[in-house]
Amino acid sequence: MAKKNAFYAQSGGVTAVINASACGVIETARKHKDKIGKVYAGRNGIIGALTEDLIDTSKESAKAIAALRYTPAGAFGSCRYKLKGLDTNKAEYERLIEVFEAHNIGYFFYNGGGDSADTCLKISQMSQTLGYPMQAIHVPKTVDNDLPITDNCPGFGSVAKYIAISTREASFDVASMAKTSTKVFVIEVMGRHAGWIAAAGGMAAGKDCDLPIIILFPEVQFDQQKFLAAVEKKYKKYGYVSVVVSEGVRAPDGTFLAETGLRDAFGHAQLGGVAPVVANMIKDNLGLKYHWAVADYLQRAARHIASRTDVDQAYATGKAAVQFALKGHNSVMPTVERVSNKPYKWKVGMAALDKVANVEKMMPKEFITKDGFGITEKCRTYLAPLMKGEDYPPYKDGLPQYVVLKNVGVPKKLKSKFELKK
Amino acid sequence: MAKKNAFYAQSGGVTAVINASACGVIETARKHKDKIGKVYAGRNGIIGALTEDLIDTSKESAKAIAALRYTPAGAFGSCRYKLKGLDTNKAEYERLIEVFEAHNIGYFFYNGGGDSADTCLKISQMSQTLGYPMQAIHVPKTVDNDLPITDNCPGFGSVAKYIAISTREASFDVASMAKTSTKVFVIEVMGRHAGWIAAAGGMAAGKDCDLPIIILFPEVQFDQQKFLAAVEKKYKKYGYVSVVVSEGVRAPDGTFLAETGLRDAFGHAQLGGVAPVVANMIKDNLGLKYHWAVADYLQRAARHIASRTDVDQAYATGKAAVQFALKGHNSVMPTVERVSNKPYKWKVGMAALDKVANVEKMMPKEFITKDGFGITEKCRTYLAPLMKGEDYPPYKDGLPQYVVLKNVGVPKKLKSKFELKK
Repeated sequence: MAKKNAFYAQSGGVTAVINASACGVIETARKHKDKIGKVYAGRNGIIGALTEDLIDTSKESAKAIAALRYTPAGAFGSCRYKLKGLDTNKAEYERLIEVFEAHNIGYFFYNGGGDSADTCLKISQMSQTLGYPMQAIHVPKTVDNDLPITDNCPGFGSVAKYIAISTREASFDVASMAKTSTKVFVIEVMGRHAGWIAAAGGMAAGKDCDLPIIILFPEVQFDQQKFLAAVEKKYKKYGYVSVVVSEGVRAPDGTFLAETGLRDAFGHAQLGGVAPVVANMIKDNLGLKYHWAVADYLQRAARHIASRTDVDQAYATGKAAVQFALKGHNSVMPTVERVSNKPYKWKVGMAALDKVANVEKMMPKEFITKDGFGITEKCRTYLAPLMKGEDYPPYKDGLPQYVVLKNVGVPKKLKSKFELKK
Repeated sequence: MAKKNAFYAQSGGVTAVINASACGVIETARKHKDKIGKVYAGRNGIIGALTEDLIDTSKESAKAIAALRYTPAGAFGSCRYKLKGLDTNKAEYERLIEVFEAHNIGYFFYNGGGDSADTCLKISQMSQTLGYPMQAIHVPKTVDNDLPITDNCPGFGSVAKYIAISTREASFDVASMAKTSTKVFVIEVMGRHAGWIAAAGGMAAGKDCDLPIIILFPEVQFDQQKFLAAVEKKYKKYGYVSVVVSEGVRAPDGTFLAETGLRDAFGHAQLGGVAPVVANMIKDNLGLKYHWAVADYLQRAARHIASRTDVDQAYATGKAAVQFALKGHNSVMPTVERVSNKPYKWKVGMAALDKVANVEKMMPKEFITKDGFGITEKCRTYLAPLMKGEDYPPYKDGLPQYVVLKNVGVPKKLKSKFELKK
C-alpha cells in the first residue's frame, strides 16, 4: 500500500471535547508514519476540502497537539454544510476527488454528528462510484447524544456534567433566596429533538442531595395545566423549584414553546428563549418570583468542567478511527460500547456508517418518569458514568490555557477554484 | 466579660463563597469557647432574628462546617429585608433586642453587601441607643464588588473568574462556527449599577489569547451607532465577535436597555433579558447570525470554578470578624487591603461601618478604555489576582459534594410572635 496522507475535519456544532478526538486522530497517525503521511485538516470542515484550504497539522508541535485534548471548540474551524447526494450535485464530489488526488489523500476522518455521518457515508460511496480509493471513517461527536448504535456520543458527557452541576448550584442559590425573593429558577438547555441534555439536569438531585427539579423534555408534549400543577406541588413542599427546560419543547399545536412567547419591538417572534416564556407563565399563573438562565454555548464549550469519561472516549474514538483505517476498514464509525455499569466499563466498538447516518436516537420512554417531568433510575444508571471524573485543563493567572494552533495552510496545487453553493 | 453567644446571618443575593465566610466565622468562634458560647445562625437572615427562628450551629459536625468552605449559596438561608431607621420602626429593634437578650447574644455578625452593612450599622446604633450591649461586625459579601474602602469584595473574584472563563470558552466556540453559522455571541452578566462583572468578561482575552470582545458597561451610556460600528470593525478583522453586556446597560432615555426590547405575548415588557435585545439589534442592522446566553444565577453560584483568592478572602474576612469582636471592636467591617500587585499580596484591614453603609463603588473611569467598550491595563492589573487560583470542591460520581446542613432550630424562649412587615 502506497503511503497516503489523511484528511481530518470537524463538522457541525462543536463541543468541549471534539478537539480531544482531533488529538486522538493526529497523535495516532503520527505513530504510523510508515503508512500515513501527513494529516491535513480542513479549514472549516468539509469547506476546507472543497476550496482546497487545507491545514498542515505537521507544522504543529507535539505539545500543541497534546493541548488539543484540553481545548474546547473546533481548533480547525467547523462548518454547517451538508453535501447533497451524488446524483444531485456530482460536481461537489468531483471537486473533492480533485483536491484529495492533488494532495495524495487516502484517508478521510470526519468528526461530527448525524448529518456529518451522512456526509462521511457519501464520501465513501463516492470513493466506490467514482473509482477513487478512499477510506472514510466517521468520528462521533454531538452534545445531543442522538447518534444510534453507540452507547453515547463524545461531547455529551461533558455538557451533561455541566448542566447537572449548574442546576445543582443554581438550586442551592434559589433555595437560599426563596424566603423573601426568588422562588423559581428556570434553566434552558440545548436539545431541539432529543431530551438527553435536559435529562442531565435531573442528575443535579440525587440520594444525597434532595432538590425539587422539574424537567421539560422535547419528547413530552407540553401541557401547561399539568406543568403548573407540578410546579405548585413542589413549591408547596420545598418552598422553591428549579425547572430545566429543553429548547425543543413544543406547544400542543406543534410550534416551539419558545416561539409562543416573546416578541421583539417590531412584533417578530423571538427565538431561542423558552426559559423566559416558562418563567413568565409561572409568574402569571402562580405569582412566584423567578430568575432564568440560558446556558447556550456556555454548556457545550465548558471544557473547564469536562467529564473525564467523555474526554477519554473522545480521544479513544479518534484514535480508533485511525486504527480502523490502518486495518483497512471503510465507511465505519468507532462506537462506545458499555460493558458494565458498576463498575462502569466500556470499550470501543464499530458501526457501519449506513446504519448511523440520518438516524436520530431519542430518549427511551422508560428513562422518563410517568408524569413526564423527571428521570427514572434506569436513566440515572445510564447517565451517571458518562459525567464521571474531572479532567481539569492547566491554568495560568486564573484562566485555562487553551491552545490556539498556528493552522499553517498547505500550499495550493490546483489552479481551479470552487464556488460553494449558498 | 460574661460569655455571650453569637448571631450570624447571611443577607442579600448569595455568592459562591459566602458560606466560606460562614465557615470562617464559625470555626474561629469554636476556637474561642472561653469567650463565645454558641453561634446561632438566623434562618433566612435577619428574619430569623425577628421571628426567633435561630439555627444552632453547634449541632453541626466539624466536618460539616468545614464543608461550608466549598459549598455555594447561603447554607442558612438569606433574605432581602432591610431594617428601617430606629426612628421609623422602633418595634423591629425592640424585638431584636428581645430575641438577642432571650438567647444571651452579644455578638452580631452580618454577612452581606451595601444594604446589609446599613442593617448592621443600625444594629450597632440600636445597641447604644437602647442600651443593649452588642458588638456588630459586618462581613463583606457581594458579587457586584461595589463596597467602598475594601479593595474588593468576597464573592466577586469567583463570579469574575466564571465570566472570564465562560466568555473565553464561548468565544472559542463561535470562532469555530463563524465561517458558515454563528458570528456573534452575546453573554449577559449581572451588575445593575457597577460594571465590575462585565469588566471581567474582558479578561477572557489576553496577551496569549487574542479574542474580539466588546463590553457594554452600565457606567457607559449606550450609543447604538457607535456600538454597531465597533461590532462591525471587530467582525471584519476576526470574522466573529463576542459581546459581554451588563444587565444594567441603559438606553439614552435612561431606561434599562433590557426593557426596550422584548414583549411577552400580552405586550408586557420582558425584563432581565438584555442579551436578546443586543443580539437582535446586531442581526437587524448588520445581518450577522447570533447566539446569546444569560448566565444569571449560574455565575454567582459557580463554586465548581471558584477563585482560590476569593475563597481565601471570604474565609479570612469571616475569621477576622470574630477576631475583631474578641478585641472589643464594634460597628466595623473587615476589608481586603491590597499590599502589592506582583506578586499579589493582601492583608485584612478594618473599616468603620458608617463609611461603608449605602456607599456604592463604581468602576473608575481609568479602568474603561476610551471607546467605552473595553478594559485598560490598569483594570487588568486590578482584576487578575482576584480570579487567580482554583479551589475545586470534592466530587462524587461526577458531581460536587456540597453540604446541606441539618439546621436544627434553637428552642424558642419567647411567647410573643412578631409579624414581619411586607
